Amino acid sequence: MSSNYIAYTPNTDSVFVIEVPRIKFGIGASEEVGFEAKRLGLKRVMLVVGKRVSQTKLAEKIIQKLEEASISVKILDDVRVEPDDEALIEAYKKIKDENVDGFIALGGGSTIDTAKVLDLIHTYPAELSDYINAPIGKGNIPPGPTKPLIAIPTTAGTGSESTAVAVLDVKSLKVKTGISNPYIRPAVAIVDPLTTITLPPMVTASTGLDVLNHAIESFTSRPYTSRQPPESPLKRAVYAGSTPVGDIFASKAIEWVNKYLRRAVANPTDIEARYYMMLGASIAGIGFGHAGVHLPHAMAYPIAGMVEKWHPPDYDFGYAIVPHGISTAIPAAYAFRYLAKFYPERFKEVLNIMGIETSNDPKEISETISEYYLHLLEDISVPTKLRDIGFSESHLDKLVEGTLAQRRLLEQSPKRLSREEIRKIFMEAL
Amino acid sequence: MSSNYIAYTPNTDSVFVIEVPRIKFGIGASEEVGFEAKRLGLKRVMLVVGKRVSQTKLAEKIIQKLEEASISVKILDDVRVEPDDEALIEAYKKIKDENVDGFIALGGGSTIDTAKVLDLIHTYPAELSDYINAPIGKGNIPPGPTKPLIAIPTTAGTGSESTAVAVLDVKSLKVKTGISNPYIRPAVAIVDPLTTITLPPMVTASTGLDVLNHAIESFTSRPYTSRQPPESPLKRAVYAGSTPVGDIFASKAIEWVNKYLRRAVANPTDIEARYYMMLGASIAGIGFGHAGVHLPHAMAYPIAGMVEKWHPPDYDFGYAIVPHGISTAIPAAYAFRYLAKFYPERFKEVLNIMGIETSNDPKEISETISEYYLHLLEDISVPTKLRDIGFSESHLDKLVEGTLAQRRLLEQSPKRLSREEIRKIFMEAL
Repeated sequence: MSSNYIAYTPNTDSVFVIEVPRIKFGIGASEEVGFEAKRLGLKRVMLVVGKRVSQTKLAEKIIQKLEEASISVKILDDVRVEPDDEALIEAYKKIKDENVDGFIALGGGSTIDTAKVLDLIHTYPAELSDYINAPIGKGNIPPGPTKPLIAIPTTAGTGSESTAVAVLDVKSLKVKTGISNPYIRPAVAIVDPLTTITLPPMVTASTGLDVLNHAIESFTSRPYTSRQPPESPLKRAVYAGSTPVGDIFASKAIEWVNKYLRRAVANPTDIEARYYMMLGASIAGIGFGHAGVHLPHAMAYPIAGMVEKWHPPDYDFGYAIVPHGISTAIPAAYAFRYLAKFYPERFKEVLNIMGIETSNDPKEISETISEYYLHLLEDISVPTKLRDIGFSESHLDKLVEGTLAQRRLLEQSPKRLSREEIRKIFMEAL
Repeated sequence: MSSNYIAYTPNTDSVFVIEVPRIKFGIGASEEVGFEAKRLGLKRVMLVVGKRVSQTKLAEKIIQKLEEASISVKILDDVRVEPDDEALIEAYKKIKDENVDGFIALGGGSTIDTAKVLDLIHTYPAELSDYINAPIGKGNIPPGPTKPLIAIPTTAGTGSESTAVAVLDVKSLKVKTGISNPYIRPAVAIVDPLTTITLPPMVTASTGLDVLNHAIESFTSRPYTSRQPPESPLKRAVYAGSTPVGDIFASKAIEWVNKYLRRAVANPTDIEARYYMMLGASIAGIGFGHAGVHLPHAMAYPIAGMVEKWHPPDYDFGYAIVPHGISTAIPAAYAFRYLAKFYPERFKEVLNIMGIETSNDPKEISETISEYYLHLLEDISVPTKLRDIGFSESHLDKLVEGTLAQRRLLEQSPKRLSREEIRKIFMEAL
């Protein structure tokens, strides 16, 4: 794989698209939610918010600022972490008759993704499966823009405030998939680092690792110039591969996570660390929202779906869970070790961005990136092996199958992977 | 001046906004203009194009692609380079009765700015001066979005395809000013490096220098956290000062111009150089479109307005002209020498991005940046002194007055400048 964007051929694409929501960033930015909603012409909004966040002063302030701007607020506050299709349909039933002209999402990735989906089916009612990505759903594109959505993230992780993707589980199939079309991108992202200073350490760690994976995976995904030209511009994939613009965002996010994640975990009120982690999350979202992610995210989905025993600190939901960032970061340590041998030039750049020098030897690059990951996980008290979170050889077949099902993500890998290769990587990760 | 974005106080702003048009970039991207216009729902467009470009194969192809998408095309092809208010009003008279639902700008910065202004008064008819920035005009904000504008730049310079600003001269006052409001930002920028391979060397040089100035000036402009908080979010200035996101774009543009400008001038068909110069122009546009530019641009305006004798190669318009990029680059060499002493940390970063190491000594940094500029100008056959383009001490008073009139730009300078300081810098530049 080469990252030379000039070396396209008549058989490969030569064009990419960048779309970004209006982003309002800064300390206290969330206080301007009333102004932003009014600017969009909204009068009656649905505030989608998780249970924990709904009981905070932040939620109170958001509602107050909206009401001060003469906007009436309905509240949906039972968002599920890592939502599935059945929970989303239940949630939709609760709001379907509400006469609202816009949505506000206040929370982490699950909340923002839930709001995207509810907004979509509230604006253009249809079966949820009609919109779910093919081949699992029909992958229908709505006929036009959805109601304006303002996303206010409360974790420095998801990047969902910048993307045109919502991730969800399909319960009957036990598979993680998504809805992606250009209309579900938020109209405005209000990104306020102050919303994250109450996050406990493990949540900071997991969401921060998600940022790092978004950034490294999008930076190392296949270049846009390695894809076939689309039949028509309309058919060009949302996840189009790495581009020189995506690379700019990914590089800076890698730099900031490397510099600030340990600080944010160690000291929740380190405002400088929170500032750059939050901005890093948003720009990594812009990056991966165009480039796509690949093997570590594909491996993460069955890990998250199959967990039986792990109850990590700060995630006391009463059920076993592998937080998304951890489910991507553990496999990343082993996936990157393997992939770096096939794309050493790029992985060397990743290391350079983090201030680590290596020779051009692919084996050295591959070992160094893996060691970097394992040390980082240890530094922020995150397990480094799947065995530590309750997996064993008995899960191997299903983990491999679940990964192979993520074809859209594997498509973005810099190396095409066989079943045996994926199995070998999982073996190491155990 | 410090660029520490965390060090805000209750008396300074803590929030910034990033807005970017949809950008379609790549080799051959302009062939997708029909698709993009259709996607915006356009049926009858006004193509605004300069005389030279209107006679090229490129213009032919753009019209053909629009017509293939069943879009009817009206053409306005007498755009003035560096347009003034009288020329714009004349142009408006020609198109005011045309029933169009969108605009396409094909050309350099003057063409894109002309299209922005025509679109604005075609959508919301009013006196041009109503929209011109205060205090010269009334600075009125239109009541809502203008008709969609697709900008297709044909130079790697202006960045106007990304910004919410149009620059124009007010003829009666002999002053350069602009119109800036969020509604005049193009809906889509189609950025195709192939459009620039026919540009002659001096045009490549001047437009490329403009990119470098946009990038360095926005990178060294006062941080957004040094401004007073706005009375209301609506009053926050379009040019809000440097931000960590603007810095990302500016840094990369500096890196690319440093690497590729000489190559693009020396070999017009160096496609790699054209690719990165073009992308650098667009991202520098995003950067300065939010941060603003400062002293070199303020000095450039009277230089451009007062030129009497210079007829540079490749600009055979029959009248004297200092191309915009050159009118900013000559003063930049001297302005940065002065300013770097007051903001050494930032100017040292600029040098580092260009691969030049210095100590922390402000004097060394200031001399090094100035030398860099003068060498670059020599390498691409651009004059290094105002004397070389027909200026002398007799122009000094008027040059200083004309610079002082650019209050909105001087406001962004990292050091507040007195009349005497500006005079001193002009003396050196002569």
